[in-house]
Amino acid sequence: VIAKELQTLIHLLGKLPGMGPRSGRKVALHLMKAPEKHMRPLTQALDTALEKVAICKVCGNLDTCQPCTICDDAKRDTTCLCVVAEVADIWALERSPIFRGKYHVLGGVLSALDGMTPDKLNISTLLDRLHQDPVEEVVLALSATVEGQTTVHYLMEHLARFGCRVSTLAHGVPMGGELDYLDEGTLSTALQGRKVL
Amino acid sequence: VIAKELQTLIHLLGKLPGMGPRSGRKVALHLMKAPEKHMRPLTQALDTALEKVAICKVCGNLDTCQPCTICDDAKRDTTCLCVVAEVADIWALERSPIFRGKYHVLGGVLSALDGMTPDKLNISTLLDRLHQDPVEEVVLALSATVEGQTTVHYLMEHLARFGCRVSTLAHGVPMGGELDYLDEGTLSTALQGRKVL
Repeated sequence: VIAKELQTLIHLLGKLPGMGPRSGRKVALHLMKAPEKHMRPLTQALDTALEKVAICKVCGNLDTCQPCTICDDAKRDTTCLCVVAEVADIWALERSPIFRGKYHVLGGVLSALDGMTPDKLNISTLLDRLHQDPVEEVVLALSATVEGQTTVHYLMEHLARFGCRVSTLAHGVPMGGELDYLDEGTLSTALQGRKVL
Repeated sequence: VIAKELQTLIHLLGKLPGMGPRSGRKVALHLMKAPEKHMRPLTQALDTALEKVAICKVCGNLDTCQPCTICDDAKRDTTCLCVVAEVADIWALERSPIFRGKYHVLGGVLSALDGMTPDKLNISTLLDRLHQDPVEEVVLALSATVEGQTTVHYLMEHLARFGCRVSTLAHGVPMGGELDYLDEGTLSTALQGRKVL
């Protein structure tokens, strides 16, 4: 009984990350129930984003200008490059004012299960970039997961020939984290990396 | 650092039912990462749905024709009208072949907390419809929640003058349901409504 046009919409919505057939139906009905109030603003925002926002050819960030605001910012430190998996990681890091260098978005992490091989990540563009504009330090800001750490090891091998310092994020107890709720892995890493006061 | 156009999109996606700021960001990045593969089909599906699908003026269903396929189906039983809260409930009921009558979508249930007053539901159109085309039975297929049952009581008062039979769905143990996992309310309703074999 569901019109073909609606079924297509429900199917596409249900395939979005974190959604399923049920939430696809829910969102489709929510949008159709008030087309002018909910649907039009969304389609317009999608069209505008599609038209104006693009992937930065230098670093892989998303922005309205080419190269992106961060790549184009003369005040940022060009001696330090931070390698992240996704654009969302740039947003997360930029929420704190600590890092003032430039970024490079890999577009994912190595994962045999998901078919993410080195050629599917922006690794060759990273190496080309380091070749053209040498830096003093490359910070590998990747997740502390098996895939993230596999990517760190792979990149370390390929970054060795540039002679720059390669660092990764510190592991340990997150700020505000209660010891009782932390897993053994985090606790033992935090213990091994303990600091003398 | 997030472009204004992207922020608007993330904000709108995050306000969809079942989503939040984090899932809004996740979906926006997923769409922007592969515009041609993920974004375009979705914007096209939204545009097509917006253009072709509309709310049926008779029953409140969503369909590409006016009145909808169900209202227009001469083979369906016109003596029985099933009142539901949302279009999704029609889809749920149509998955089983039991009900062959027509539907009326209220567009929600009465809820003082959410500001859902009788004038915000399609109740006057229901009464007009019953006035013009009298039926033998009205089935109130509403949720077994406080709001659903409040709506049932409200409707029963207003349906009394039409002299038709008014029924609600049976309550009890869902098919495949294990007694151990059911709440007391369902179990006591199922016991009270027990059937002699």
